Amino acid sequence: MEPVLEVIGVFVGALSGALAGVRKQFDVFGILALGWAAGLGGGLLRDVLIGAVPPVGISDWRLVVTALVGGLAMYFFHPRLERARRSIVLLDAGALALFTVVGAIKGLEHGTTLIAAIFVGVLTGVGGGVLRDLLTGEVPVVLHHRQLYAIPALLGASAIAVLWKLDLATTGAAVTVVVGIFALRVVALRFQVEAPGPWPGLRRGRG
Amino acid sequence: MEPVLEVIGVFVGALSGALAGVRKQFDVFGILALGWAAGLGGGLLRDVLIGAVPPVGISDWRLVVTALVGGLAMYFFHPRLERARRSIVLLDAGALALFTVVGAIKGLEHGTTLIAAIFVGVLTGVGGGVLRDLLTGEVPVVLHHRQLYAIPALLGASAIAVLWKLDLATTGAAVTVVVGIFALRVVALRFQVEAPGPWPGLRRGRG
Amino acid sequence: MEPVLEVIGVFVGALSGALAGVRKQFDVFGILALGWAAGLGGGLLRDVLIGAVPPVGISDWRLVVTALVGGLAMYFFHPRLERARRSIVLLDAGALALFTVVGAIKGLEHGTTLIAAIFVGVLTGVGGGVLRDLLTGEVPVVLHHRQLYAIPALLGASAIAVLWKLDLATTGAAVTVVVGIFALRVVALRFQVEAPGPWPGLRRGRG
Repeated sequence: MEPVLEVIGVFVGALSGALAGVRKQFDVFGILALGWAAGLGGGLLRDVLIGAVPPVGISDWRLVVTALVGGLAMYFFHPRLERARRSIVLLDAGALALFTVVGAIKGLEHGTTLIAAIFVGVLTGVGGGVLRDLLTGEVPVVLHHRQLYAIPALLGASAIAVLWKLDLATTGAAVTVVVGIFALRVVALRFQVEAPGPWPGLRRGRG
Repeated sequence: MEPVLEVIGVFVGALSGALAGVRKQFDVFGILALGWAAGLGGGLLRDVLIGAVPPVGISDWRLVVTALVGGLAMYFFHPRLERARRSIVLLDAGALALFTVVGAIKGLEHGTTLIAAIFVGVLTGVGGGVLRDLLTGEVPVVLHHRQLYAIPALLGASAIAVLWKLDLATTGAAVTVVVGIFALRVVALRFQVEAPGPWPGLRRGRG
Repeated sequence: MEPVLEVIGVFVGALSGALAGVRKQFDVFGILALGWAAGLGGGLLRDVLIGAVPPVGISDWRLVVTALVGGLAMYFFHPRLERARRSIVLLDAGALALFTVVGAIKGLEHGTTLIAAIFVGVLTGVGGGVLRDLLTGEVPVVLHHRQLYAIPALLGASAIAVLWKLDLATTGAAVTVVVGIFALRVVALRFQVEAPGPWPGLRRGRG
């Protein structure tokens, strides 16, 4: 995986985390900490679960600096960056796709089972956002927003696991899965495809 | 320990997690994720703390499928299952007892100190519920509900540690402790025995 | 590092955690659990991240007993201890300084990179308070209170990392850094030096 792509993912994640901190009126430390948690928290959970400690999220200074730069950018320029919301959502879809595939492959390379690789892939993709939400006192948005966010990641991580099992996990295949997750996420956003809530509904007269 | 008992524990935990997700109107991914967290999260914390990574909660497909089946059952049938609340409370007491004992023994088998085994036992028993509560934005119920829940687990895990130290931790002894935790929990429920709140009370005129 | 100093840090952390539990009207288990989390949670996160498992926070009975004694002291004597608030804030500044330096050094001794040592140092210092806040349903105070709390820890951990790199991390140097973090924290408290919030402000007419 091109390191430059991972760096973009961390940067975008850090923007989203720092923005959450800005909105909560955190102080400068809190804003940068949120940027770090959102940009590198998913990979940190992955590394702890597969035993790759210390996690790259605290030990690789290039990634840490990337998260700090993203956090500082949002700290200083949030009025302008908030207007670029649409671009951030697109970049975030790219980061989700990338993190998921990178995470699943890292798991498999560490010798995890296929099912564990699917878990760590999804966790790498959505974990940073979950940490960001927990640290700002919010219920993790990925659990309730009904957008297709975790589901494309789940499908993509499963595809990687199957390809690996079949010995077909080439770089080309990985890139294809990244594009597939990204496309699914963007199409779902564009046409407002939603994941269903509790079946058969909790509203009066239906349940 | 009979694997079938552990499967029942995971299933019951998943029901409780998925129900919390249903009540919060999470989407289908969120509901299944909560089921997974509540059913397998305690064991996951245990495995991370004793270094048994990747944790069985993400790598053993039988346990993962069990949690998913529990989550799906609640997703589709929650109106009916909520009426079976009393049975779920009883099953949950069984799961608490079982997870605590299994967890403490797994710690000891990994060479932990006795005090660490007590911790991981209790954490295996109550950790899934703590994760469930944190992920739904609730203060963990085990910390404030005043029911006897963690305390039976603490007594049971301590008993296992002492038996292990004395070289008396046979299967029969483990089963006895499971039954003891379960009985203590059920008796406390039946007679509404409560753990005390802050001493000597914070009410006006007393503190 | 003198073990007696670490014990004092754990004790003070446990007081702060148990007090948070008392205020939330937790039951006795919840209050002691909060004391444990606040006193030993920072070190627990550190140990998981550097792979020193099981963490001392669950396996070293002297530290666990210290946290329990702190929790019990607050459980029974909170009306009196709350009046000693000023002393607790001072002791807490000492614990922050000590935990940060001990944590960073432990990371370095485990062969982490310098940047990872800075992270685990700060996390050891502030992590217990973060866990305490999350478990009581609060947004972690260290992220938003604008006091200088994490920043002195960050400076101190960075100093330790640089000294280590230069082969100058003697006991005397470590003690000096502990005193420096403590002094910075106390001076900031005394003169109400604050970390800035989001730049350039979110108030109407400014952003």
